[in-house]
Amino acid sequence: MKPQDLSGVWIPICTPFTDEKVDAGKLEKNMQVYSQTQLRGYFALGSNGEACMLDREERIKVLRTILKNKGKGQLVMAGCGYESARVTIALAREVADEGADIASVITPHYFKKVMNDDALIKFYERVADESPIPVMLYNAPGFAGGVQLSAKAVARLSEHPNIIGMKDSAPTGPNVFLSIVNRENFAVLAGSANFFITSLLMGAVGGVLSLANFLPQACCRLYDIFQQGDMERASSLQRAILRVNREISGKYGVAGVKTGMDFAGLYGGEPRLPLLPLSQDDREKVRLVLKRFVEEYPEFKSYMRI
Amino acid sequence: MKPQDLSGVWIPICTPFTDEKVDAGKLEKNMQVYSQTQLRGYFALGSNGEACMLDREERIKVLRTILKNKGKGQLVMAGCGYESARVTIALAREVADEGADIASVITPHYFKKVMNDDALIKFYERVADESPIPVMLYNAPGFAGGVQLSAKAVARLSEHPNIIGMKDSAPTGPNVFLSIVNRENFAVLAGSANFFITSLLMGAVGGVLSLANFLPQACCRLYDIFQQGDMERASSLQRAILRVNREISGKYGVAGVKTGMDFAGLYGGEPRLPLLPLSQDDREKVRLVLKRFVEEYPEFKSYMRI
Amino acid sequence: MKPQDLSGVWIPICTPFTDEKVDAGKLEKNMQVYSQTQLRGYFALGSNGEACMLDREERIKVLRTILKNKGKGQLVMAGCGYESARVTIALAREVADEGADIASVITPHYFKKVMNDDALIKFYERVADESPIPVMLYNAPGFAGGVQLSAKAVARLSEHPNIIGMKDSAPTGPNVFLSIVNRENFAVLAGSANFFITSLLMGAVGGVLSLANFLPQACCRLYDIFQQGDMERASSLQRAILRVNREISGKYGVAGVKTGMDFAGLYGGEPRLPLLPLSQDDREKVRLVLKRFVEEYPEFKSYMRI
Amino acid sequence: MKPQDLSGVWIPICTPFTDEKVDAGKLEKNMQVYSQTQLRGYFALGSNGEACMLDREERIKVLRTILKNKGKGQLVMAGCGYESARVTIALAREVADEGADIASVITPHYFKKVMNDDALIKFYERVADESPIPVMLYNAPGFAGGVQLSAKAVARLSEHPNIIGMKDSAPTGPNVFLSIVNRENFAVLAGSANFFITSLLMGAVGGVLSLANFLPQACCRLYDIFQQGDMERASSLQRAILRVNREISGKYGVAGVKTGMDFAGLYGGEPRLPLLPLSQDDREKVRLVLKRFVEEYPEFKSYMRI
Repeated sequence: MKPQDLSGVWIPICTPFTDEKVDAGKLEKNMQVYSQTQLRGYFALGSNGEACMLDREERIKVLRTILKNKGKGQLVMAGCGYESARVTIALAREVADEGADIASVITPHYFKKVMNDDALIKFYERVADESPIPVMLYNAPGFAGGVQLSAKAVARLSEHPNIIGMKDSAPTGPNVFLSIVNRENFAVLAGSANFFITSLLMGAVGGVLSLANFLPQACCRLYDIFQQGDMERASSLQRAILRVNREISGKYGVAGVKTGMDFAGLYGGEPRLPLLPLSQDDREKVRLVLKRFVEEYPEFKSYMRI
Repeated sequence: MKPQDLSGVWIPICTPFTDEKVDAGKLEKNMQVYSQTQLRGYFALGSNGEACMLDREERIKVLRTILKNKGKGQLVMAGCGYESARVTIALAREVADEGADIASVITPHYFKKVMNDDALIKFYERVADESPIPVMLYNAPGFAGGVQLSAKAVARLSEHPNIIGMKDSAPTGPNVFLSIVNRENFAVLAGSANFFITSLLMGAVGGVLSLANFLPQACCRLYDIFQQGDMERASSLQRAILRVNREISGKYGVAGVKTGMDFAGLYGGEPRLPLLPLSQDDREKVRLVLKRFVEEYPEFKSYMRI
Repeated sequence: MKPQDLSGVWIPICTPFTDEKVDAGKLEKNMQVYSQTQLRGYFALGSNGEACMLDREERIKVLRTILKNKGKGQLVMAGCGYESARVTIALAREVADEGADIASVITPHYFKKVMNDDALIKFYERVADESPIPVMLYNAPGFAGGVQLSAKAVARLSEHPNIIGMKDSAPTGPNVFLSIVNRENFAVLAGSANFFITSLLMGAVGGVLSLANFLPQACCRLYDIFQQGDMERASSLQRAILRVNREISGKYGVAGVKTGMDFAGLYGGEPRLPLLPLSQDDREKVRLVLKRFVEEYPEFKSYMRI
Repeated sequence: MKPQDLSGVWIPICTPFTDEKVDAGKLEKNMQVYSQTQLRGYFALGSNGEACMLDREERIKVLRTILKNKGKGQLVMAGCGYESARVTIALAREVADEGADIASVITPHYFKKVMNDDALIKFYERVADESPIPVMLYNAPGFAGGVQLSAKAVARLSEHPNIIGMKDSAPTGPNVFLSIVNRENFAVLAGSANFFITSLLMGAVGGVLSLANFLPQACCRLYDIFQQGDMERASSLQRAILRVNREISGKYGVAGVKTGMDFAGLYGGEPRLPLLPLSQDDREKVRLVLKRFVEEYPEFKSYMRI
């Protein structure tokens, strides 16, 4: 797999629940929409998928539903991160057996105090040595209690033959990493719509964007405009998307993304406790954010139910 | 269960591995020592037990070994924290079925940004409503990515009939919580030897001390001296214990604690990757710290192999 | 000067303003009250004194007023911290010329990223070498942008003949420092009423307590009870004081302390912008906190105007 | 003054010392070089100028030297930030009297805990109301102990007629601010070379770059290439500049920048204590970083003495 094979927009896909149970039927309906878009692929069992909320059986159910319903040519990377290398490897084998293309592995973080370069490098090298499918580093200090991969660690890990790239969700964006890795062999994906085209400008091949759960078309459009070199339009759309992203995903997290999906004619619904559903007031705020967005960009209006 | 029933020193017991596999035999040997001490009980499946590193089967194995080998009258609280209330409840039922006395539940933290009072209160109330055994709050920002229970949340949760107390490992110690809860109904345990007697002075009933893995006798002695009201001696021993704790558990975490166990004639051994075993240099530093301690307190020398 | 010479309660004295100008007359009136108490001394030009808000002339005016009106035997330490050793030394000479007994020097912090042990040790050693009066380290990460002295740095600096001690306002309290310095030559003062008697238990000689601005008698009483060895009563009063401190100084900072002074018949008044005065609602909350305190401890009621 | 008047590269100019004293002669020599470049202007008395290390007389001396030696058409913004609005205004008047064009005001931060939107907005509005010259917000959490302006505060302050723009040095870059302010009336300057062209892409008009102290020509070139729309070349040069910036300014701060100046034939020299000069080993590392840079970009070789 080459970095360019990962080019484009990925969706860290949400998990619909009914009465707190995983609802594979609703997930399937959502997949019918996503599979018709230009999305490059799916990040299954990630943060937005509430994977850390699910038990083992539920995770398998979600992954199978995604794999079965993806569009032709779309790829699936599956979250396998766990605190120990041993269990992470077991999970990577499991998702590989199910048919996932890539194993996404978040930095271990429970023992934050001792998660230095040496520990993280040894962890990822062991996992990559034993994973049957390529490994994607997942740098997400916001979820990993502040643990993040250093430039030095990424430079080293990027040379491992079974580590294909990284998804970077740190609020700084992946500029530093892009300046030090060999981008011929190592793909960098922006982990937030907040810095999507700035990451592309610096050499990222795409992005894994929670916003794509409810605005997949706008995300794909932004990618296309940037590729075509229309920097002025790309900058404008990026600013508009950033505003939406901050007010929904940034402010409310997964519960906000799911509310956005509700307004986009998809199955969002409620997250699992301790995540709380939005109040009516907050739902209305989300609606207004989306309304303003489609007033500015009417080409995306038809996708919305607001 | 009353707060005074929890009085004394608890051990957040380590998990020995052989060739990376849980070694129940070694754990049993360690238990033979601990069960002869004045330790009040065991915190099984906690941070020092590397529970987050284990899979489900391994956790059950560890818990059963502890339950089977505990001393008469000693209690067992078992770690059940998971990111969702739903799975946490399932785990609480599981450890209750095995025979654990108390369910210890760390704050959920993956979705740190939205873990406000409201979310944490609803989470713990749901868990406590459904757990068949009493629940112990576990406040440990160092492991939980900085998430911590607020005074307001603890004040509220301390009134729940099935929440028996809290273990506080925040570096500030539990002074604030002790000033606001009803100590007749709610037990507070210091989560670190660094602030053991200062917490007792403020009204804590005991402590869960990683140091007790290799210095159980010294921890129990400190508790006794304090209870006897000899503040001068308590202060001196506390300062000495603090120095040891900082240089071993504080500096090296679980790997340091396990090395301390090696020097105390117990089975410590290596932690699981990404935790790294100590270098020879660092092991020697640990040995010297313990040597200095027993030179100052020769009454604990017989327990050490240094 | 010996550590025991610093024993007792110190007040980090506030600066009253009238129409935003330093009001020496009001400060004098406050001093008439404080000078009649058992307070050990004054921390002039500190955080609660809003020294960082004042220009050079104003600072001299404040310092002179305190020096002129202090009680017999009371000491004055004056804040001299500045980002460079060069200017800090100039300020230390200035306050020494005015008659201050001790120079209090907060950690430099603007260039936080490079404020490692080496930089801080060299800074303090230079300042101590050249200051005509003894130097007091001031560890206050809450004001110093998170910079704090390490145990290693304090161990080293505590041996300098012109460094007499440290005031520690880190939220953890000074337990660690107390376990490693030679308390015969180096005085440790608790920097917050939140951990006053726990610090005393561990070997501190006293405290610099913002609470003493409006509850000097209660702070001195707590110190006395602890010295007398009545741990039960000390623990109760400490918990009550902690509640007050958190709800006033902890919640509102200097503006809250000044409001507390208003209710204690002293001149508090408004702080300087960007510090904001309390709203009427918040003033009422402060009043109720104090009311509850004197209901529990009626012996301090006569000092209050609530 | 319009946003476009601020377009281009600004230098946060360093202060040379001889025997720890401000050396105006050396500063003049540096100015002779800078004044011949395409630099848009100077940020005098900023972080890299070690302004927080200087006393009042020294600051005036530095400012006068810069004003006297600047190139035709170059602008000067001067650092005036202080913890109180009152003293900040006094400083703004002072630098205006000297001839500075713009007052740069860092967020107050000593009382971090209470520096909420309300406090910061009131502070800046008061300063802007009274400053005789336009005010530039300076958002620099790395220097300001983590205090940063919120999007909401900037949105509000950007409408004040005497607030002309902001310099953003937060590690995230100014993407969010650029998406919410009216860029017709409010100029945004990137505060670090790490995210210079990504900020330009999002709508910034220029940057204040510590790197420009020793690589002014490369910074101006990067700006030009971006303006010409050659994104590929801009991206490459940006990545190279980012590498240099991280290894010098990022790693060593002001002391590193001054060492870079030494290798660029300018007067860098040593910073003031507690900033420490680089060791010989570290100087050699800086030399190698610059050597690698000019091997990749030989057009900048003639400026270097390596």
